[in-house]
Amino acid sequence: MLEPVVGTEPARAGLPPEMTRLERMLCACRGEPTDRPPVWLMRQAGRYLPEYRELRARTAFLELCRDPELALEVSLQPYRRFGMDAVIVFSDILLPFQGLGLKLDFSPGPRVENPLRSERDLARLEGSVAEAMAPTCETIRALKAVLGDETAVIGFAGAPWTLAAYACETTLSRDLAVLNALSYREPALLDRMLERMAEITTESLRLQIEAGADVLQIFDTWAGTLSSQRYRRFAGRALGQVLAALPSPRPPLILFARAATHLIEELAALGPDVVSLDWRVDLQEAAARIGGRVALQGNLDPAALLAPAPEIRKEVERLIRAGRKACGHVLNLGHGVLPTTPVESVAAFVEAAKHGTP
Amino acid sequence: MLEPVVGTEPARAGLPPEMTRLERMLCACRGEPTDRPPVWLMRQAGRYLPEYRELRARTAFLELCRDPELALEVSLQPYRRFGMDAVIVFSDILLPFQGLGLKLDFSPGPRVENPLRSERDLARLEGSVAEAMAPTCETIRALKAVLGDETAVIGFAGAPWTLAAYACETTLSRDLAVLNALSYREPALLDRMLERMAEITTESLRLQIEAGADVLQIFDTWAGTLSSQRYRRFAGRALGQVLAALPSPRPPLILFARAATHLIEELAALGPDVVSLDWRVDLQEAAARIGGRVALQGNLDPAALLAPAPEIRKEVERLIRAGRKACGHVLNLGHGVLPTTPVESVAAFVEAAKHGTP
Repeated sequence: MLEPVVGTEPARAGLPPEMTRLERMLCACRGEPTDRPPVWLMRQAGRYLPEYRELRARTAFLELCRDPELALEVSLQPYRRFGMDAVIVFSDILLPFQGLGLKLDFSPGPRVENPLRSERDLARLEGSVAEAMAPTCETIRALKAVLGDETAVIGFAGAPWTLAAYACETTLSRDLAVLNALSYREPALLDRMLERMAEITTESLRLQIEAGADVLQIFDTWAGTLSSQRYRRFAGRALGQVLAALPSPRPPLILFARAATHLIEELAALGPDVVSLDWRVDLQEAAARIGGRVALQGNLDPAALLAPAPEIRKEVERLIRAGRKACGHVLNLGHGVLPTTPVESVAAFVEAAKHGTP
Repeated sequence: MLEPVVGTEPARAGLPPEMTRLERMLCACRGEPTDRPPVWLMRQAGRYLPEYRELRARTAFLELCRDPELALEVSLQPYRRFGMDAVIVFSDILLPFQGLGLKLDFSPGPRVENPLRSERDLARLEGSVAEAMAPTCETIRALKAVLGDETAVIGFAGAPWTLAAYACETTLSRDLAVLNALSYREPALLDRMLERMAEITTESLRLQIEAGADVLQIFDTWAGTLSSQRYRRFAGRALGQVLAALPSPRPPLILFARAATHLIEELAALGPDVVSLDWRVDLQEAAARIGGRVALQGNLDPAALLAPAPEIRKEVERLIRAGRKACGHVLNLGHGVLPTTPVESVAAFVEAAKHGTP
C-alpha cells in the first residue's frame, strides 16, 4: 500500500547538507539554529485531499483512527505529496475516552454520548487508556519504521481543559455552558475532573513517547474561552500537572490553544518548548511578547490558503522574516487546513517554506 | 398589558439625588462623572426569563421582533423585574435584510436562505431598510413614551463585517469559510459588499436615532476571527464608513466585538464613545490599554451568573473598582445572558451594581 516517500532536499550552498527533516524539526523546537524553518500543517491529513476523501467515503472516521494500517496510510498521504518536515499521526484527542467507558460519536462533530457531570460519573471512569491508544501507538511505530531518522513523527493529545469540555458537554457550543457552570458552582468537582483528565493526557503522551514520537503536541482547543485569571486557575493548573508528570527528558512539546491571543504569556509560562499561535496574533508581536522564552509555531490564517499562490508565497516569506525574532520557528497554519483548501495551495505553502532562509 | 415600571432609586447621601437612569447612562458613555456605574445586560430580554419563554412558546422569534406591541412587552420584561439603567429594544441585527430581499430563517440559529456571493447577488439587494426597521422604530417610540426621560433606550445594529458574514455564509461556523475565501480571492467584491453592509448599518442606526434611541450599540460579533491587520483592512474600514456617515451630533455609540481581546486598540481607534469588552480581557488591563480614550462597557463572564450570589457580588465589586481606571464604565456582561442563567443571579448582578460607588 505504501509508496516510497519523497526524498531529501538537495543541499544548499553554504549550509550543512546533512540536516534531515527530523533534525530541522527538533532543532527549531529547541530553539537551536536550522538551515530554514521546518514546516508542517495542522490537519495536513484531511478532507482537502482527494485520496483522503476516497478512503473516508468507505470508512468511518473512528475506524480510520483505530486501524493502524489505514491510519498509517492517511498520515503519509500529505507527506508523499508535499514532503513536510513532520508527519502527525492520524488519530483523535478523544480516543483515550474509549478505553474508559465514554461513548464517542462523530456524526459529524465529536460528542460524548454519556457525559461526565458528577462525582459518580467520575467514579465510573475506569479502564485502560493504553488499550484505547494501542492502534495510535502502533501507527507511530509503523511511521517510525517507514520514516526512520529522516522525518519527525508527531504524537498528540488533548489538554485537560479541552478533554473536560468534550467529556461534560453534550453539544459543544462556544458557550461551554456545562463546563463553565461547573467552574463557578462546583470548582472542587471540576478540579477532580481536570486532575483525572490530566492523568489521561499524560498517559496518552507517555505511551506515544514509548512508541517513538519525536515531538508532542497538546491541543487546548477550548482554552481561549477563559480569561487569563481563570486559565491559570483551571486549564493552566491542570496542564502544569501534565508537564510535571511527563518523563524527563522528553521529546520537544508544542502547546496549541485556539483564539488564545490573550493567553500566550500563560502558555509560555507553563514551560512547553513551543507555543503554537493561532492566526489572530501577529507573529512578530508574539515573538516580542514570549519569543525569548519559547519557540513559536504558526501562524498563517488557514483561509489564506484560499488565496492565489503568489499571495501565499508572500505571506510565508513575511512569516519567515517575523519568525527570526523568536528563538526557533516552526512554520504552520494558525489552525487546521480548511476542507475547501485547494491541494495546490498546500503545495505552494510548503514550497515557499522550503525556499525560506533562516 | 404594561405594568408600571419600577421606580427610581432613593437618593443617596452626598450624591446628586436628581441623576436619572438616563443621565447616568449618558454620562458614563461620555466619560462624565456618575453617582455609580450604570448597569444593563446584553440579551437581558431572553430565554432565562419565564415570561419571555411563555411568549416565545406561542410566537416565533421574528414575529416577536416585528410586532411592536410584543417587542415592547419583551423589551420591558427585564426592566420591570430588575430596573436596569437601560432598556435595549427587542429586535435583531438581521432585520434590515428582510427589506432587501434576503430571506431569514431562525430555526434555531440565524441563517440567510439566499446568500450573497457575487456582484449579481449584490445587485439584486434592493428595497427598503426603513420598511423592515419600521416595527423596531415603532417599538423604540413606544419605549420612549413609557420610559420618558427616566431610562435610556438602546437601539442597535450589526457591524458591516458581521452582517456580511450572515449574508454570505449558509451555515455560520467559526471558520467563516465563504467570507474568508472572498477576502483572500475577491477582495474588491468583498469591499463592495462591505460598503453595501455599511450603508445598511448606517441606515438602520439613523432610523433608530430618529425614533428616539438614547444610545446606540453596534455588534461586531464576528470581528474576533480577524487579525488586527485584516481587521483594519476589512471590518474596521467598513465600520469607519458607518461612524463617518452617522449624523452629528449623535447619541453615544457603544462598539461590541466578541473574542476580540487582540483588537481593542483598533476598536477604540474607530472613535466610538464606548468599547464593550468581552470577558476574556481583564477590565483593568483594558483600561490601561484604551481606557484613556473611550469609556468601557462590561465585562462579567456570562457563566459567572451561574455562581452563587455572594460570588456574583464579589465579581461586580471587583469590576466596579477596575472600571474606575477608565474614563466612564457601563456595567454589563462580556456577552449575552446564557439561557440557563437563574433569574435570581441577574437580580444579584443588578443589585450589586446599584450598590457600587463610582
